[in-house]
Amino acid sequence: MSSTNRQILLASRPVGMIRDECFRSETTPLPEIRDGEALVRNIYLSIDPTIRGWLDDSESYLPPVQIGEVVRCGGVGEVVESKSPNYQPGDIVFGMIGWQEYSVAGRDGQEMNVLPKGLPLTAALSVFGVTGMTAYFGMLEIGKPVEGETVVVSGAAGATGSVAGQIAKIQGCRVVGIAGSDEKCAWVRDELGFDDCINYKTEKIPERLRESCPQGVDVFFDNVGGQILENVLDRINQRARVVLCGAISQYNATEKVPGPSNYMQLVIQRARMEGFIIMDYIPRFGEGIMKMGGWVGEGKVKFLVDIVDGLENAPSAINRLFTGANNGKLLVKVSDEPS
Amino acid sequence: MSSTNRQILLASRPVGMIRDECFRSETTPLPEIRDGEALVRNIYLSIDPTIRGWLDDSESYLPPVQIGEVVRCGGVGEVVESKSPNYQPGDIVFGMIGWQEYSVAGRDGQEMNVLPKGLPLTAALSVFGVTGMTAYFGMLEIGKPVEGETVVVSGAAGATGSVAGQIAKIQGCRVVGIAGSDEKCAWVRDELGFDDCINYKTEKIPERLRESCPQGVDVFFDNVGGQILENVLDRINQRARVVLCGAISQYNATEKVPGPSNYMQLVIQRARMEGFIIMDYIPRFGEGIMKMGGWVGEGKVKFLVDIVDGLENAPSAINRLFTGANNGKLLVKVSDEPS
Repeated sequence: MSSTNRQILLASRPVGMIRDECFRSETTPLPEIRDGEALVRNIYLSIDPTIRGWLDDSESYLPPVQIGEVVRCGGVGEVVESKSPNYQPGDIVFGMIGWQEYSVAGRDGQEMNVLPKGLPLTAALSVFGVTGMTAYFGMLEIGKPVEGETVVVSGAAGATGSVAGQIAKIQGCRVVGIAGSDEKCAWVRDELGFDDCINYKTEKIPERLRESCPQGVDVFFDNVGGQILENVLDRINQRARVVLCGAISQYNATEKVPGPSNYMQLVIQRARMEGFIIMDYIPRFGEGIMKMGGWVGEGKVKFLVDIVDGLENAPSAINRLFTGANNGKLLVKVSDEPS
Repeated sequence: MSSTNRQILLASRPVGMIRDECFRSETTPLPEIRDGEALVRNIYLSIDPTIRGWLDDSESYLPPVQIGEVVRCGGVGEVVESKSPNYQPGDIVFGMIGWQEYSVAGRDGQEMNVLPKGLPLTAALSVFGVTGMTAYFGMLEIGKPVEGETVVVSGAAGATGSVAGQIAKIQGCRVVGIAGSDEKCAWVRDELGFDDCINYKTEKIPERLRESCPQGVDVFFDNVGGQILENVLDRINQRARVVLCGAISQYNATEKVPGPSNYMQLVIQRARMEGFIIMDYIPRFGEGIMKMGGWVGEGKVKFLVDIVDGLENAPSAINRLFTGANNGKLLVKVSDEPS
């Protein structure tokens, strides 16, 4: 075990895309744990678009990361020392571990969750983790797809979108993805079983939507926002549900981004646009994980993880989400999995 | 009875505000009625913002009015001749009568509704009509206000907004209006019993919202759109409901109007924005009218009508909705009520 803890702190707030200068590295002594706490060796950091939002100085569902603080993020690690009855050395835990080599479970009342033995760590951070649960509850609780309906998913090759679309397929829907490369579209169509996938970088979205959704769109699971949201709103059916999961096209915007100019489609089509925050569903994760476990076991839900090696690469890794360079759930590997 | 029928037809599609040149007047012979039809002497035309939308060549919940067609609008009239068992001479009927002196009930299967005897015609076209029912079903079915919540209504002095706010008061909510003059605000506050009313033309909406909605906003009943929608979205609470009733600030726009740049507030606050079309609730009007009748009888819902005299003034009357010159439900009087 190291005697130091390398950390990445927020040095200055990013304007637009994240640059290396926004962060600085610091090496501190290993945190000393007190009664009720456990020391955790961080293994995988979960790199999610929402982190970008926390770096801005604006109110959101969690307070912003302050300058000089360790960058907040979820992830998994191994308990290496414990003064808490909740954790045993060797336990694999999930929680807000941050961009650092070690974290403390149970500090300031912030407990972590011990993962069941035998669960692959990468699955725990993807399909059984926040992105998988976001897909599950967002699609089923907000989108409410009904057999025979048409469902469109943007960010279809992403960790959340890819699972959301597969869940809609399981419900018996026609599912059309929107993704950013021919390779991603091919994967979404051929591997995941979507009925069609539009490459928004090379194809004309309105035309392709008309073609691929001849009956209109009943559910739109949107991870992207911007022009794509507007294009799909133009095609929604009566009583459509637009699930606002994210707006990855906008997180790096340096100016106010206009909303969809055609939002009055919601009136004409008696439709709704609704947001949700996955944290609200944490008490129901057990239900979601069980269901998802069944689907993964039957091969009905497939998932992909994209692992970047080294804590020092976390800042550049997050930009991969916004350029679309990642393939599946993006993780940064900080240390080895226990053998 | 006249032997001719003066009509106002759409001559060219308006760009921006309606101008007189968009219409032409034509005098035709009285329509001859066939079996199953009745001739109706039009009395009041209901002048509503939605008419503006029908004049554009764009898909909506009803097809656009075509060039050369009589302008579509709802209203009431008196049956003067009938070859249908559904109508007796002397009946007062409600339906899509159009901008003309006479209309035909039962033509092409388009029946009209016979109003109960004794109901004041102006009430039938306002509080018991489309605007009153829009307020009723929009507020209660989409907004779902709960006792103790804060409700904001834009277009608060309008035919729909004024009733919507009073219904929220009946539910035990704090109700704040937004209107366009001090006189309107005073009426909304002092006569209708809203807790506060913001004059959006002279006051700073964000500051006044903070002041008048210290607990945030749970329901926003929006008739206006644009900047006002954005300002209120900034103040919504978790699980807020934004009822999209209309967007009167935009109907005359000649260019694409950006949507609310802060629509991601819906995600952060797990909130929803939902549109509706009152036509969908026609089967439930009986329920709404009964309930509204009780409230009007008890003095809990007050309403105002603004009558413009003469069919020829219909084109200029509709612009009053967009400049905010009207006071309450706007009607154009085409002929006298039966004595």
